[in-house]
Amino acid sequence: MAYKDEQLHEEKVFKDPVHRYVHVRDRVIWDLIATPEFQRLRRIKQLGTTNITFHGAEHSRFNHSLGVYEIVRRIINNFQGRTHWNNDQRLLCMCAALLHDLGHGPFSHSFEKVFKLDHEHFTQQIILGDTFVNKILQRVSPGFAQEVADVIAKTHPNKLVVSLISSQIDADRMDYLQRDAYFTGVSYGHFDMERILRVMRPIEDQVVIKSSGMHAVEDYIMSRYQMYWQVYFHPVTRSAEVILTKILHRAKHLYESDYEFKLQPTHFLSFFTGNVSLAEYIKLDESIVHYYFQAWQEEEDEILSDLCERFMNRRLFKYVEFNPNKQISELLRLIELFKKAGIDPEYYLVVDSSSDLPYDFYRPGEEEERLPIHLLMPNGYLKELSRHSDIVEAISGKKRTDHKLYFPKDFLFTIQDEQLATEITEILYGKEM
Amino acid sequence: MAYKDEQLHEEKVFKDPVHRYVHVRDRVIWDLIATPEFQRLRRIKQLGTTNITFHGAEHSRFNHSLGVYEIVRRIINNFQGRTHWNNDQRLLCMCAALLHDLGHGPFSHSFEKVFKLDHEHFTQQIILGDTFVNKILQRVSPGFAQEVADVIAKTHPNKLVVSLISSQIDADRMDYLQRDAYFTGVSYGHFDMERILRVMRPIEDQVVIKSSGMHAVEDYIMSRYQMYWQVYFHPVTRSAEVILTKILHRAKHLYESDYEFKLQPTHFLSFFTGNVSLAEYIKLDESIVHYYFQAWQEEEDEILSDLCERFMNRRLFKYVEFNPNKQISELLRLIELFKKAGIDPEYYLVVDSSSDLPYDFYRPGEEEERLPIHLLMPNGYLKELSRHSDIVEAISGKKRTDHKLYFPKDFLFTIQDEQLATEITEILYGKEM
Amino acid sequence: MAYKDEQLHEEKVFKDPVHRYVHVRDRVIWDLIATPEFQRLRRIKQLGTTNITFHGAEHSRFNHSLGVYEIVRRIINNFQGRTHWNNDQRLLCMCAALLHDLGHGPFSHSFEKVFKLDHEHFTQQIILGDTFVNKILQRVSPGFAQEVADVIAKTHPNKLVVSLISSQIDADRMDYLQRDAYFTGVSYGHFDMERILRVMRPIEDQVVIKSSGMHAVEDYIMSRYQMYWQVYFHPVTRSAEVILTKILHRAKHLYESDYEFKLQPTHFLSFFTGNVSLAEYIKLDESIVHYYFQAWQEEEDEILSDLCERFMNRRLFKYVEFNPNKQISELLRLIELFKKAGIDPEYYLVVDSSSDLPYDFYRPGEEEERLPIHLLMPNGYLKELSRHSDIVEAISGKKRTDHKLYFPKDFLFTIQDEQLATEITEILYGKEM
Amino acid sequence: MAYKDEQLHEEKVFKDPVHRYVHVRDRVIWDLIATPEFQRLRRIKQLGTTNITFHGAEHSRFNHSLGVYEIVRRIINNFQGRTHWNNDQRLLCMCAALLHDLGHGPFSHSFEKVFKLDHEHFTQQIILGDTFVNKILQRVSPGFAQEVADVIAKTHPNKLVVSLISSQIDADRMDYLQRDAYFTGVSYGHFDMERILRVMRPIEDQVVIKSSGMHAVEDYIMSRYQMYWQVYFHPVTRSAEVILTKILHRAKHLYESDYEFKLQPTHFLSFFTGNVSLAEYIKLDESIVHYYFQAWQEEEDEILSDLCERFMNRRLFKYVEFNPNKQISELLRLIELFKKAGIDPEYYLVVDSSSDLPYDFYRPGEEEERLPIHLLMPNGYLKELSRHSDIVEAISGKKRTDHKLYFPKDFLFTIQDEQLATEITEILYGKEM
Repeated sequence: MAYKDEQLHEEKVFKDPVHRYVHVRDRVIWDLIATPEFQRLRRIKQLGTTNITFHGAEHSRFNHSLGVYEIVRRIINNFQGRTHWNNDQRLLCMCAALLHDLGHGPFSHSFEKVFKLDHEHFTQQIILGDTFVNKILQRVSPGFAQEVADVIAKTHPNKLVVSLISSQIDADRMDYLQRDAYFTGVSYGHFDMERILRVMRPIEDQVVIKSSGMHAVEDYIMSRYQMYWQVYFHPVTRSAEVILTKILHRAKHLYESDYEFKLQPTHFLSFFTGNVSLAEYIKLDESIVHYYFQAWQEEEDEILSDLCERFMNRRLFKYVEFNPNKQISELLRLIELFKKAGIDPEYYLVVDSSSDLPYDFYRPGEEEERLPIHLLMPNGYLKELSRHSDIVEAISGKKRTDHKLYFPKDFLFTIQDEQLATEITEILYGKEM
Repeated sequence: MAYKDEQLHEEKVFKDPVHRYVHVRDRVIWDLIATPEFQRLRRIKQLGTTNITFHGAEHSRFNHSLGVYEIVRRIINNFQGRTHWNNDQRLLCMCAALLHDLGHGPFSHSFEKVFKLDHEHFTQQIILGDTFVNKILQRVSPGFAQEVADVIAKTHPNKLVVSLISSQIDADRMDYLQRDAYFTGVSYGHFDMERILRVMRPIEDQVVIKSSGMHAVEDYIMSRYQMYWQVYFHPVTRSAEVILTKILHRAKHLYESDYEFKLQPTHFLSFFTGNVSLAEYIKLDESIVHYYFQAWQEEEDEILSDLCERFMNRRLFKYVEFNPNKQISELLRLIELFKKAGIDPEYYLVVDSSSDLPYDFYRPGEEEERLPIHLLMPNGYLKELSRHSDIVEAISGKKRTDHKLYFPKDFLFTIQDEQLATEITEILYGKEM
Repeated sequence: MAYKDEQLHEEKVFKDPVHRYVHVRDRVIWDLIATPEFQRLRRIKQLGTTNITFHGAEHSRFNHSLGVYEIVRRIINNFQGRTHWNNDQRLLCMCAALLHDLGHGPFSHSFEKVFKLDHEHFTQQIILGDTFVNKILQRVSPGFAQEVADVIAKTHPNKLVVSLISSQIDADRMDYLQRDAYFTGVSYGHFDMERILRVMRPIEDQVVIKSSGMHAVEDYIMSRYQMYWQVYFHPVTRSAEVILTKILHRAKHLYESDYEFKLQPTHFLSFFTGNVSLAEYIKLDESIVHYYFQAWQEEEDEILSDLCERFMNRRLFKYVEFNPNKQISELLRLIELFKKAGIDPEYYLVVDSSSDLPYDFYRPGEEEERLPIHLLMPNGYLKELSRHSDIVEAISGKKRTDHKLYFPKDFLFTIQDEQLATEITEILYGKEM
Repeated sequence: MAYKDEQLHEEKVFKDPVHRYVHVRDRVIWDLIATPEFQRLRRIKQLGTTNITFHGAEHSRFNHSLGVYEIVRRIINNFQGRTHWNNDQRLLCMCAALLHDLGHGPFSHSFEKVFKLDHEHFTQQIILGDTFVNKILQRVSPGFAQEVADVIAKTHPNKLVVSLISSQIDADRMDYLQRDAYFTGVSYGHFDMERILRVMRPIEDQVVIKSSGMHAVEDYIMSRYQMYWQVYFHPVTRSAEVILTKILHRAKHLYESDYEFKLQPTHFLSFFTGNVSLAEYIKLDESIVHYYFQAWQEEEDEILSDLCERFMNRRLFKYVEFNPNKQISELLRLIELFKKAGIDPEYYLVVDSSSDLPYDFYRPGEEEERLPIHLLMPNGYLKELSRHSDIVEAISGKKRTDHKLYFPKDFLFTIQDEQLATEITEILYGKEM
């Protein structure tokens, strides 16, 4: 039997708190899970610094990747008899689902921002480069690795397959909403996935939803909305991220200034110089980052050691609401005052913004461009979701943005010049404080 | 107001997946949670290598410690009007609950075994030594830190307080059973804690259970039994632990043999020499261990690098059942054959045993000595649980032990000498294989 | 000790699937639960005919009433220290919560519509009339029964007490959403009640919500919206209700036409004549209604027996969407055709409408007038919910109405005149069918 | 296509709180559910008087029957490829599962006891008699109804099919444990059914369990044990049942004594005379029983009216523990004293016993004879469960019996003769009371 068609002697299962069990029958899937590149995802948290706010959120990307695979597996099962897929297309979907986050590094968001990286680029490299994952995919068939890479990159000609992995209601999102809700313990994030899976219908180039299932989809979109504002953009989490970002900036700056580190930033060098090889990238997991941050608490450089100590011991920045349209002069004044007080505003006065677009039917060229959701009406026509759902229509295309100003409140109490301290406090908190 | 009586301006809560919310009103508790020593528990997994088997089990000891505190807080609330406790005793219980696991290091089980350590010793040191935690406890009152230490050490004269933290149905166990069940996703580990809390009654020197709540306690004991055999002693987890233990042994051995490490085991030196200071102990969290294991994959020493590579990439040892009474000669023969095949049996042929005593009414001098559970009968008398419950009586005092033999199955396929390979295989798997 | 202050020797609990336990400590509450008038609620389903669609929805109003009481009990607990309530006000709230649905009869919606009744009128009568409930309330204090009645009628001067029982986020709604979700098994209806309870703040004349809890309230409002359209207005449930309504109409009509019933409608007589006494009202529970409907399957009158048989055996009417603005001529034509076919359109062609207003900030004089939800902002000001929440703003005041046309599809197949049958079918389903 | 092979155009689902969804694809199943005989199960509670104790337990036998069907459907799905079953055997299993409780009447336990009936007899009659159910089964094939009846009666030659419906771990038990736990809200009754289904293996004449799933089975057996003692035998529920039984006895006695009922017991006549026809049996659902009991509260006969009033308004008998071996003389004395006090001991002094055998490997001729559970060991041999599981071995074959003495405590307070009252009280409660 061809490798691609090999079935395990007995089905293997992973106990999963969210989907109960993750089922594996295909040898290819089993072999991919066993690769070092995939096992590495165990050491990368799904939600980065969110565990600082929600202590249950320690779950890894390994977790999530298995979950996305399992959802796709179930969708394909439901599609039996409705598509003309052969086993190759089935395997393509499942591999793409399993591997779609393979290129994530530790605290991806911050690393990508500071070092101008893109985890999707590394996902492609791991799939196509000289890796264990690639060897397995090559064994399926010569072009298979490229196909998997194309599905993840959304450039694959089979749009139906792509839409399972990346649309506004794809397996990726359905898994992470439920999983993140489970591990944080929040009561949002629940929707009737079983029902959504049952009303999904494959048509030519996309997955559509039978209109009878519209309310389950509304519920999913509201879950998404709530998870963004209640969990993903939680200001305490963002505070930890702000500090993390500033650590990376500072370390890079020190390196460029020929500062003599007690612990050389060996694992970071290629990131600082902007020339990251796959091997170096893969080596960097959260343990390594923690190792450095722990050690750097004892560096001479006060800013680096202070920021690292804050990050490790959860002494976070506080925040106030900030309106960039109206308060720019206050911000400029604060920068001045911080400098006067000997607090470097570059590291200790940070505006951070979050914004979310809960659902959009069409927004070409957007960073997060995903396909709209189409309902399959009883008469056989398709209807874009927001044109049928009052709830979705109401929130559709409405981008909400939130800006906050982060700073170490504890520092303010150390300012000797009382007048200076008062002025800073008044700008930040108003006169009443 | 005295520091010990200070209440937070607004109650603080932690979202907790198991107890919904953890509530904090006392400033002392809030300050203890913010210490670096307590925050460090975020970087130590509650279940060590269990996440290798159950991928959800990434939760930290930080998690569990808050949970134990919360249960004790609720018990004390229920006790209002039933005890003559003042606020000092209340605070004593809650601090002991919160801090009882403070001395745990990474992969405690293995480290303690290999380096002859005891995490309880370090818990005492952190509470009584020169730490942030100690400073806060001292501020409560001069003898308070010692009192907390005594409760945790079970030497405190107030036996009632001790029994909340360490008995056969204490807050510690009630939390970890539920929490570990939640994060692994298994369906064991559930019992009606709310009911147990409601039927707990404080008497002079212990907490007893109203007999009407006996069935809830039976359910708890069965949960415990199932969790031990289904989760805590899972053979795949034990395999990872066997490898971990062997890595530590090997590294120590190499250090003692003046092996030249590419990456010096700086953080381990005091462990190797048996002279661990508190500062060194606290520095060692799971990130640090992972950092070394990742680096050591590239060491010259083949055993060390192989074991590290296995641990990081989940290439585990396989196992067969082993009966130490009947199969000792087979084991001796295997050792011989392994040596012949060039596989060092000291590292690659390991007998590992697990044993559990689900409940025992009295077993003085036992390592895990905990108090028996007493039922409060309608007539006001006490009755030891197993004398009233058929179920508990049936399993009471029955120690069950399980032995397994671990080895790297993949190595067997590399043995050139066919006859040698056959003999090994036959001993391990019988002739039919 | 005064009766009103009497506490039970031991707290009593009811096991409740939704709130885990319902706790009773006050003797008054315990005594009220034991009255025949309250026990009668066991024989009245919370959701009338919904169990026809969702087979789990067999739960009774007894169930729900205990739940509302429990929520109010918890809210009052949380208010301790924030209000200047004495025990009398506490008891007033809890009694009103427990008794607010006391006047519900079987299938209230249909009975009220057909016989022009109002269950709130009967609630008042039971509380104030010659009943066991009244005796207990009188024993609390002479004016207490009237106070409880006033709170339920929303005419009590203490607006804060009223708002706990009837506002847009009151204990009533919070209980039924969760309870109905639990028993139907749908995945809607979940929201973080524990959090909402924690952010509720009593101010002079209402309960407000701390703005930090806004998202939990949004979630609650979405739950409400989903439950209405997914459960309460489910077309299959409405079909059963349409039939039920028609049975009542027919029985009344037959009675007025001096039809000779095999089983005299003794229990219904006062309903038919519009002169219902309290004693007669209380006697009518769902068992009695089922008894008659079972017997009436064997009446001579074909319409009555057919409708009863349909109701008992779930042979429901089918439905098509109906637009009253555009399709009135089709409806008139159908009435004509039904008559021609010998099918009485008065009983067998029914337009049924449902409409819901998910949230409204102010709509005086509305049938379902409830108070708006106010957020307590950090600056101490109040802000009406929809002015702060995008989501709520989007759906605020948007009444959605849905009309459907119900008819017995099976009858159509029995029409002899083929042309007639075809025309009816075409109007109902369009030509393609 | 043959009727038996017909599939519904679209799969139909029932929302089920326990199994999430019940799936129906076969027209035969769909048609059976729509019969009046099956719909009648909606009006019969699964747990009779248990809702008196656990107010959530209002769920019907309709509920449970769908659940058993669904479990069998899933088991058969899992068996695909492991059995040589054709569609006929599949349908046979599913029909037997769906219909196995069809003959249950209201409060079966009491009715069967008082009137010497057997619900299984009526199940057979409904399947084989002149009913809608029978017509559908006949349409499948001439002998099919008989086959279904044989499976339910456990006389069918295909033992494997029988064991799915009646063994010690059959679909019936797995459904009711979980369902009754869900609706009562207790925390017992949970076990990992999904895992059990996955480790079930069909062999020649029975379903066995792969030994790797043993712990899930242990958990199931403990659930069963807990449900029996915590829910099914709850003394408050039994008190209601005692009263119910006495009502039936009294009504029969009055009828036989030519008492003139205000409301003639028309629906009961055939039960009193011991000559119940199927038509009469089917007519009797819980509504009818409630109708009579409500009316009979106003009968002249004081015993009948008192008992009915107690049942309807939950004024139950109290109980004390009773040991039939040691306390028979006390009982006799009590009977005497009750008579003296004018309280008829036949109706007001009742010994009620419950007993349960949590698991037994072999007990031929037992009333509740079910097949033992066999484990399929890795070596291919079968091993009876209790020989492999310590837990099960411990409780295997241990019948536990509990006797209680029920009586109306309120009556005791009405006894004028103080000495008499004292003596009765002392016997019941001991001198201390």
